This record gives sequence, structure tokens and C-alpha cells, in this order.
Amino acid sequence: MEMAKIGATEKGGCNRLAATALDGQARDLFVSWCRAAGCSITVDKMGNIFARREGKNPDLPAVATGSHLDTQPTGGKFDGVFGVLAGVEVLRTLHENNIETNAPFEFAVWTNEEGSRFSPAMQGSGVYVGRFDLEAELNKTDINGLVLRDELKKIGYLGDAEPGSRNIGAFFETHIEQGPILEDEDKEIGVVRLGQGIRWYNIVVTGRESHAGTTPMHLRADAMSAAALIVTEIETIALAYANGVGTVGFMDVYPNSRNTIPGTVKFSGDLRNPDPKVLEEMDARLKAFCANIEKSRGVTVEVDPFWYFAPVKFSASDNVKIAAEKLGYSHMDIYAGAGHDACYMADLVPSGMVFTPCKDGISHNEIESTTSEQCEAGCNVLLHAMLEASESMQ
Amino acid sequence: MEMAKIGATEKGGCNRLAATALDGQARDLFVSWCRAAGCSITVDKMGNIFARREGKNPDLPAVATGSHLDTQPTGGKFDGVFGVLAGVEVLRTLHENNIETNAPFEFAVWTNEEGSRFSPAMQGSGVYVGRFDLEAELNKTDINGLVLRDELKKIGYLGDAEPGSRNIGAFFETHIEQGPILEDEDKEIGVVRLGQGIRWYNIVVTGRESHAGTTPMHLRADAMSAAALIVTEIETIALAYANGVGTVGFMDVYPNSRNTIPGTVKFSGDLRNPDPKVLEEMDARLKAFCANIEKSRGVTVEVDPFWYFAPVKFSASDNVKIAAEKLGYSHMDIYAGAGHDACYMADLVPSGMVFTPCKDGISHNEIESTTSEQCEAGCNVLLHAMLEASESMQ
Repeated sequence: MEMAKIGATEKGGCNRLAATALDGQARDLFVSWCRAAGCSITVDKMGNIFARREGKNPDLPAVATGSHLDTQPTGGKFDGVFGVLAGVEVLRTLHENNIETNAPFEFAVWTNEEGSRFSPAMQGSGVYVGRFDLEAELNKTDINGLVLRDELKKIGYLGDAEPGSRNIGAFFETHIEQGPILEDEDKEIGVVRLGQGIRWYNIVVTGRESHAGTTPMHLRADAMSAAALIVTEIETIALAYANGVGTVGFMDVYPNSRNTIPGTVKFSGDLRNPDPKVLEEMDARLKAFCANIEKSRGVTVEVDPFWYFAPVKFSASDNVKIAAEKLGYSHMDIYAGAGHDACYMADLVPSGMVFTPCKDGISHNEIESTTSEQCEAGCNVLLHAMLEASESMQ
Repeated sequence: MEMAKIGATEKGGCNRLAATALDGQARDLFVSWCRAAGCSITVDKMGNIFARREGKNPDLPAVATGSHLDTQPTGGKFDGVFGVLAGVEVLRTLHENNIETNAPFEFAVWTNEEGSRFSPAMQGSGVYVGRFDLEAELNKTDINGLVLRDELKKIGYLGDAEPGSRNIGAFFETHIEQGPILEDEDKEIGVVRLGQGIRWYNIVVTGRESHAGTTPMHLRADAMSAAALIVTEIETIALAYANGVGTVGFMDVYPNSRNTIPGTVKFSGDLRNPDPKVLEEMDARLKAFCANIEKSRGVTVEVDPFWYFAPVKFSASDNVKIAAEKLGYSHMDIYAGAGHDACYMADLVPSGMVFTPCKDGISHNEIESTTSEQCEAGCNVLLHAMLEASESMQ
């Protein structure tokens, strides 16, 4: 609740976009809490933060956890933030009880997980694991032309450490489910076995601007009408495949004046499916539809499939399951519908995710909500999954 | 071409929104040209400018002409501006040849015809003829919350005269056709007999923001998908009726983030038809469709039909036809697809419009184009239509 004051919105959510002054305040608060519990702090060149608590054997690879502090423009209090604060809770529990762990523990905050201000999402962890180029990502600009590198510097989180250089042996991330399944099934813990595959597109329809009153229908090249058909098709494709989802969350219309037929419409496309083969079919269908629109409507349709996130297997999910069982929490296997930093960390080290229920499955919304008990269960499972991993660390 | 330098765009058009500093510069240039040709200047409380050249009998109602100097954000050099400058050309011709007219002549610039920065369109002439309330319109704000009254004051065009107080007996407006018909029919002059009926809507679809990856399709209330269906229906309605047009030129998506299902989509609707009964059918069909979307999709759809512009008859169009015939220009009867200031002036006094061809019928586009010869024909017809009207003025 203290963290949620930073960027609090009227409707009870948070608006704390990546690398803004508010993000800086949230990071400062995290760092102060970790220092107070005995950690040393490292910031890497991508702005990722690592708070380290030493173990009995400082040369062992660390057991790490973390998530993100940035939010959607109309985000909630818990998405990402809960994963960071679950780490802080683990840290305080160890610190207050003077528990010395076998391996060192690290508590991470990843830069720009949401992808709202700078694209793509999971940018900090993506650079850390080597999926993205550091320089290219630091040069990314927001909608106002502000450069990520400058923005991180402004808030004091453009560090010196090389991304990827932490000696980490396992990674765990606690997260609200952001969907309705745990609540429906009345389970306290989701043991995340798989991350859903995601395909993101930038689509640009270019027609011809002309006067809305004097241009007969047959002489139009209306970018908006063409875009609307593609939006509808994205929904149709999602509905055509089991477990498929499809979304157009962003649209920018040019010149965006009521009396002028739009000349250009830019929008996002998002298709997801846990089955990579099905996702490929969905992708092919979208591209074919766009090609047909281009032919039939006298507009050009550029489809840039700029991001593909293959389904991920979480090889440390047994640690999560064992911890849930040991602590007596009800649990079920589940897959992650969204991308998470842990999905990228799974490239490098055995990783696992702990899901906890959220009210009505609603996330990316200011009314996002969960209970103290649900959070407590997640923290306890995280602690014991990390301790389990620490014991076997070599 | 000198006027087109003010707000010139890279692609050869103009971006000179109403009551901006650029609009102020354009008005200053008009005023300086009119003063140089012997006119006195009056500005009314709505920012409308009237340049007056006295006639033999100053007590006779004036024969007036005029149009607007504001443009679309990606507008051309000629839309509106040609009508103002055709007036300046008539004025200079009278002045340079020392012609004394029977009635006074007035040359007008109307505030905010385009409706791009402040809504609705034809705001200045609408207030002048009493269709809109002066105070309500002066209090209108642009997208940044700036108030029209303050903006007019800033550029020095918030005058003292009461709108509607000029002693005018007839009004003419010269305008590029903004459509392809004159070019197709190879005519120099369009004698505008009728102004098309227009219905403008503000439509707001409200669904529920949630996460694009974790919200199953059947649990969504996606404002964007619902809006896309309405955009498509507006096109379908337009195609279903002879001479119908339909357009969605403006759309604003909230929160407009690729990873969040849109909670709110606001957009414009525009339906037009020269036949008022057909336009009524189109209107009913749109409202029924929106009501169905609301039922079937778990979203709310507010349809605000905030502006209706009834078809207009131009009772002074015979003056235009006689002038075109006398001067030997090829001509045809035509109707106006767009709204124009003359459509409102037709409420008060006998009015007429002179249309001239524009290249490929394209307008509201930076590539909007016409030739000196086509403009010359328009100016000559305007001059003679005004002289004709002046002779019969009582």
C-alpha cells in the first residue's frame, strides 16, 4: 500500500510508467527497504536493480527473485509490484530471523516490463538474457521522443554493471494470475508450468485523405474502414482456436479530424496461444486477411510482426509445487497468459513462477485487487521454493 | 500562394487551425489587403471579419461574399481560402477600375469553418445567423482545454460588433468543389442549387479494461472490437443508399496501450444525403445497430447526434448561372457535399455558391490543387453575380 501511493490514481490504481520520476521514486523506496535489511545494491546498464543478501557460501550462484515496478497507464497496485514486494517480504523474513541461507539471495527489479512507454515489453529482462541488444533498447524513444537512456539517467538508474553478469543459479517470480482461473477453481497457488506464446504486430493501413462530405464512396481509400475490418478479424481469429486470444489495444488515426477521411491508421495486433503450431496458423490467417484487404480496398497494409515470444517451459516449477504442498496450500498447474520477466530468465537458469488469485481475474485495470491472505500465501511459497533451490545449489 | 505560406506544410498543403497564431497572421494579411483597396474593417464578437467597400447608396443592404481562412490539420491551399481571396480579387478589380457599385460590397472571413480545433464546423457563420449561441460557442475548448474566446483575444480578433448586425442583402461564396464531378463533366463552373444534409455524431463505447493476455475471449468487454463493428456499419449504411456517404474520421482509444483491452473508445460518425428522408433512415439504422451492439457485447454505446444540418436551397443561384452564361463559361447545376458558411447565410438572405473544379476531386488533403484559369473563372463569375445582385438591391 505504501508503494501504491507513488503514482496513485483516483480510481485506486497506479500510473507509474517506466523510467519516469514516479518509477524513480518507487525504485528508491525498494532500494531503501533492501538496504535496511542488509543488502548491497547493483544497477546494470539497462537500469535493472539487484539487491544481494550474502549466503554461507558467497561463491555459489544466487537464488534470485523479482519482477517489475512499472505499471500500465491505468494499471493496478499489484501487477509486477507484488512480485517485487514478495521478494522484499522474503528478504525481511530471512533478515529478521537471522537465517543464513546456503546460497546468496538476490532481489531484482526489471526495467520496463509493461512495454507501455517504451516497446517491447519485458525490455530489461530481455536485454539481461541477451534477447535484445543493450544499445538498441537504450536508444528507444517514447511517444514524445524521449530516449530511454536519458530517462534512466535522469532518475539515477543508469548503472555500470553489464547486463547478464550476475552469478544467478535459479530464478523465481511471484505474480497475481491476472486471469480468473484460480478464483474459479478456488485454489490459493498456481504452479506455472508454461508461458503462453505471443505474437505482437505493428499494423499500418495507408489510404488517401479526402473530404468526408464530397468524396463519393466508390472513390475513397478509407484507412479507417480497412483498419476496422482487420480489428474484427483479429477477434474472429482468436475465437476460432481453443485457448486463443486476440487484441487491438492501441490505435493512432491520422489526421484524426472528423471531416476528413483518415489517410493513415496505425494499430497494434496481439495474438496468443499456448500451442506454438496453432499460434502459427493464427499468424498466417492474419497476414492473409491483411493481404486481401490491401487488394480489395485500394489501401496498403504493412504488417510488422516485430515480436514473437515462444511458449516457455518453467523447469524450476517443481520447487514451487513442493513448497505449496509442504505449506498445505491448495494449488493447481496453470499456464501464464501474459509475458513475464521469468519467461526470459528461463533462457538462462531454471525458473519458476508462483501465481496467486486476483479479484474477478481483472488486471491492467485500476480496480485490480487481491487480499492480504492471498499475498501471504504467495510470499510463503516463494520463500520455501527459494530455500529449496538454495539447498541444492552447487 | 502568399496566403499559403502561412502554415505551409512540407507536402505543399496548409496547417492553419482556427484561432491559432497562424490564423491570426492570415487574418492580418487579409485585412491589410482590404485596407489597401479602400475598405473599412469590422470584427464581431465571434471573430468574424467584414471588410466594407461603400456603394453609391450606403443605406442599401450590402452584397457580401466570403469564406474561411482556417484549414484542416493536413489541409490544402484552396479549401475556404480561395473563397476569401476570390472576394479580394473582386474588391481589387472594383478598386483598380474605380467602379462604383449600386449597393455596398462586403468581404467576409468566418471564424472556424472547419470544426477541426473547435466543434462544430461553420461555427462563426452559425453564430452570425443565430443557429448557435454566442456565449456557448466562445466557451468551447480545443483538445488541450484552450478556450476559443481566449484564443481569439490572443490573436486580436475578438471584436465588438454584434453577430448578425451587418446590413447584408445577398451572400455569395466561391469554393473549390472538393469532389470529382466538375472535372469528370469537364465544366468550368458549378451552379450550386442545394447543400447536402449532414448528421454528425459523437459515439462513446465503454467496455472494461483488462489484460490482453490473460482475459479469455468470453470474459471480455472489448470497447475496440465493438467500435470496429460500428465503423464498418457506418460504411455499410452509406453504401446502402444512393448518394449516401459515411465516415469515421476521428477516434480516441483509452488507455491506448497494446497490452490492455481498451475500456473506452470515442469516435466521430458522419452520415450525409441530399434527401432528408433518406438521411433520416440512415440515422435510424445507425442508432438501431448501436443499440444491438450494446445488447450483444456487454458494453455501453452512447450515441450523441449533436449536429444536424438540414439540406439547404440556394435561392440566389440564378445570379450565379446568369453570370456564368454571360461570361461564356461551361457550367452545370450541382449540389454541395460539404457544409459551407453560405449554407448558414442562406437562413438570412438570398445566397448562392460558385463551385470551381479541383484536381482529381481531392480536398482536405495537402495535395489539393487547382489552376489559375479555374480560379480566374470562379472570380469572374463571383464578380458578375455580385454586380447583378447589386443592381437589383433595394
